[in-house]
Amino acid sequence: MKSLFFTAFLILNLSNFAFAQSKKPNFIIIFTDDQGYGDLGIFGHPSIKTPNLDQMAMEGQKWTNFYVAANVCTPSRSALMTGRLPVRTGMFSNTRRVLFPDSDGGLPASENSIATLLKTSGYATKAIGKWHLGHLPAYLPTSHGFDSYFGIPYSNDMDRINDVDAKEAFANPKYQYFNVPLMRDTEIVERPADQNTITKRYTEEAIKYIRENKEIPFFIYLAHSLPHVPLFASKDFLGTSDRGLYGDVIEEIDWSVGEILKTLKKEGLDQNTYVVFTSDNGPWLVYNEQGGSSGGLFGGKGTSYEGGVRVPTIIWGPGNVKPGVVNQIGSTMDLLPTLCSLSDTQKPDDRIYDGYDLSPVLKGENKSPREEMFYYHGDRLFAVRKRDYKLYFYKNNPLGYPAKVEKLDTLQLFHLPHDPSERFDIAAENPEIIAEIQALVKEHQSKLVMGATQLEKRIEK
Amino acid sequence: MKSLFFTAFLILNLSNFAFAQSKKPNFIIIFTDDQGYGDLGIFGHPSIKTPNLDQMAMEGQKWTNFYVAANVCTPSRSALMTGRLPVRTGMFSNTRRVLFPDSDGGLPASENSIATLLKTSGYATKAIGKWHLGHLPAYLPTSHGFDSYFGIPYSNDMDRINDVDAKEAFANPKYQYFNVPLMRDTEIVERPADQNTITKRYTEEAIKYIRENKEIPFFIYLAHSLPHVPLFASKDFLGTSDRGLYGDVIEEIDWSVGEILKTLKKEGLDQNTYVVFTSDNGPWLVYNEQGGSSGGLFGGKGTSYEGGVRVPTIIWGPGNVKPGVVNQIGSTMDLLPTLCSLSDTQKPDDRIYDGYDLSPVLKGENKSPREEMFYYHGDRLFAVRKRDYKLYFYKNNPLGYPAKVEKLDTLQLFHLPHDPSERFDIAAENPEIIAEIQALVKEHQSKLVMGATQLEKRIEK
Repeated sequence: MKSLFFTAFLILNLSNFAFAQSKKPNFIIIFTDDQGYGDLGIFGHPSIKTPNLDQMAMEGQKWTNFYVAANVCTPSRSALMTGRLPVRTGMFSNTRRVLFPDSDGGLPASENSIATLLKTSGYATKAIGKWHLGHLPAYLPTSHGFDSYFGIPYSNDMDRINDVDAKEAFANPKYQYFNVPLMRDTEIVERPADQNTITKRYTEEAIKYIRENKEIPFFIYLAHSLPHVPLFASKDFLGTSDRGLYGDVIEEIDWSVGEILKTLKKEGLDQNTYVVFTSDNGPWLVYNEQGGSSGGLFGGKGTSYEGGVRVPTIIWGPGNVKPGVVNQIGSTMDLLPTLCSLSDTQKPDDRIYDGYDLSPVLKGENKSPREEMFYYHGDRLFAVRKRDYKLYFYKNNPLGYPAKVEKLDTLQLFHLPHDPSERFDIAAENPEIIAEIQALVKEHQSKLVMGATQLEKRIEK
Repeated sequence: MKSLFFTAFLILNLSNFAFAQSKKPNFIIIFTDDQGYGDLGIFGHPSIKTPNLDQMAMEGQKWTNFYVAANVCTPSRSALMTGRLPVRTGMFSNTRRVLFPDSDGGLPASENSIATLLKTSGYATKAIGKWHLGHLPAYLPTSHGFDSYFGIPYSNDMDRINDVDAKEAFANPKYQYFNVPLMRDTEIVERPADQNTITKRYTEEAIKYIRENKEIPFFIYLAHSLPHVPLFASKDFLGTSDRGLYGDVIEEIDWSVGEILKTLKKEGLDQNTYVVFTSDNGPWLVYNEQGGSSGGLFGGKGTSYEGGVRVPTIIWGPGNVKPGVVNQIGSTMDLLPTLCSLSDTQKPDDRIYDGYDLSPVLKGENKSPREEMFYYHGDRLFAVRKRDYKLYFYKNNPLGYPAKVEKLDTLQLFHLPHDPSERFDIAAENPEIIAEIQALVKEHQSKLVMGATQLEKRIEK
């Protein structure tokens, strides 16, 4: 009897395997908000426990030099979704750094999102969580290639009711203080969104979608609205972590990741699904204990120092992603070309992409096609990394506030692998490296056509 | 034929298993020198790869709040070896913070080392690597319970030859610049010790010892002399890491750990051996790129801020140590009572121990018996941790240099799990916690009998 069961089990698994080989792979991008480089166990946090993410990193690739294209929310998200720098797509501004409830702009229709492209390959597409690329109908996920959407359209601290003091609202957050809408597709289904249960509900939505779409290739973009302040955790997690409320939030996200991976395994989809975990920018340090930590990196959200733009990243895909630690450079902008490559999806060739196809690195190749990163702060080129070296043209407060950005009188240069905390400026000893990076900048800028800013448009009252 | 092999294999393994159950467990303590909290992959370093230590941590316990008793070498090592604070044993000083080649002192004969105690339970005992508890015959490992010894008696930067400039000697180290002796038991067998191959030779010595002693319980104290500056790596590792020479050194130590665990598995000893990996103090930050990193912690070697005294610690023992992350407080001083407990070894009851038996935590209990740490700097009580809170009485430069230590005008208090980087002083809001810690200090000091300093004695010329 036992061996009969075993044989049946084997056949079932073999058929799953055969099936997995013939179907295009599924993709899940899990994108957290303001989670710092140091805010996972396996990225070194001393009091937050993330057993599911730790295990995911051991089974997959832990990327230690993975960047977002901008140090705040809206531009960073636009770059992930389009594979292009915000300065090209218009998702940048020097005065309004993200979209607000009174914004009249969003991701232009001329931009192709990952979802739009994957749709051409027959993918089912779902966006869950925070969008923040425009909350008006023309800009919502359903206008950008997603079959359906469930989440909040902008940050969870927006629409604050006027009679609550900001300090009180953040120190003892109640979701009623923030009149943020929860949307299904283009409709508001709850307002204010009950943020206590939001991570849980996003997770349930993702799991349901996986179960309902296991016969066709799917793409899920799960953009958690936390740990952006104000912080909320469900009853099961509230008060349970050693790190206080911030830790409760991360540990609930870790639980969520665990549930999703468990579902993939249970449904026999793990061998044909790539899961990416990353964050949209560094920790919001000015919120003290309610903000996260960039670990040993310098600076946080709102700066283009390493702590503001390097994000904790894990790429998982049993049988498809060669496990290990990857110290090579990658970026959220690389996800679009990588997912297109893995799914045999064509990208339109009428525009410049800033992303690279990382699929060879996922398969185990030792050298990333990405050798440089341009770190824009609004329209200003704040810094550039080329291979091991990062050259700074600007400076600002490492806490990201006050927000003032100033041109450096003397350029600063750091060797990041040797000096990840950016303690030792080696500009004076390395004029030839500076010249090399300056040449790269010149070439980059010669091809750059700036998009018209979308972030400064306001709804007329 | 195949099944015959399998049956034979099974019998062999069962006999190993039965044998393992009847024998006292083996212990290996791997102790690195000046390795910072952030200098392992699994503790968050972005460019040093430590796959063997990462795996060891996943199979065992990763301790995130594990402390040494002092922020420099000699006192820290004495505390590990005796389970007692340096102020009790005399292994402290305010003027000479460690032992030097001209020192006439060392660990007093009245102190019992872990090895001395384990010998009473029939253990074979071996010390490998840096000792630094006295290089005169009365103080060497063989006078403190070790059957044999192979290593250097003090730091690898000592006995520098006079005609080499210090800056040159550290920037482009050649082992010939440092006339450090390599000893076997009480004899000098090589001088200067060839430090290029020293990690490799320590490892070979440990593996040989494991193989030769597998029939009896053994204790190996493997105290690497690196990554203390000057840095050396063998040919196989030189120039191979992304982190430069410092990374090469750590990656060679990681290799060494892997070889030792592999040997234990191969010899069928893994189910009956506990392996502890830890460091003697924080990174020596004043040596810039040649020093390590405390990750997100504040300060380094020579300070009692978290970066100076919290060390990356892994405790491994398949089948005996419940895998997971442990955020509870532990200390190198706890190793003596823990090893005694695990091996049913009696400790003399004529003295105060500062260590606690952590064996319940190793088995999976959620609560460490250790709730406090006293951080001495010489004879001054610099800070005290009680559960989540750390209270500072003194301050010094977080880089550990200049070495001046000053009394604080206003005490400082930090909640370490919430604020591991010690950014937010919460003394003003928490007078009752300060009072509680002050009461603890009073009680502690009422029972404290200071030992006579051993570190200021010099050989007469």
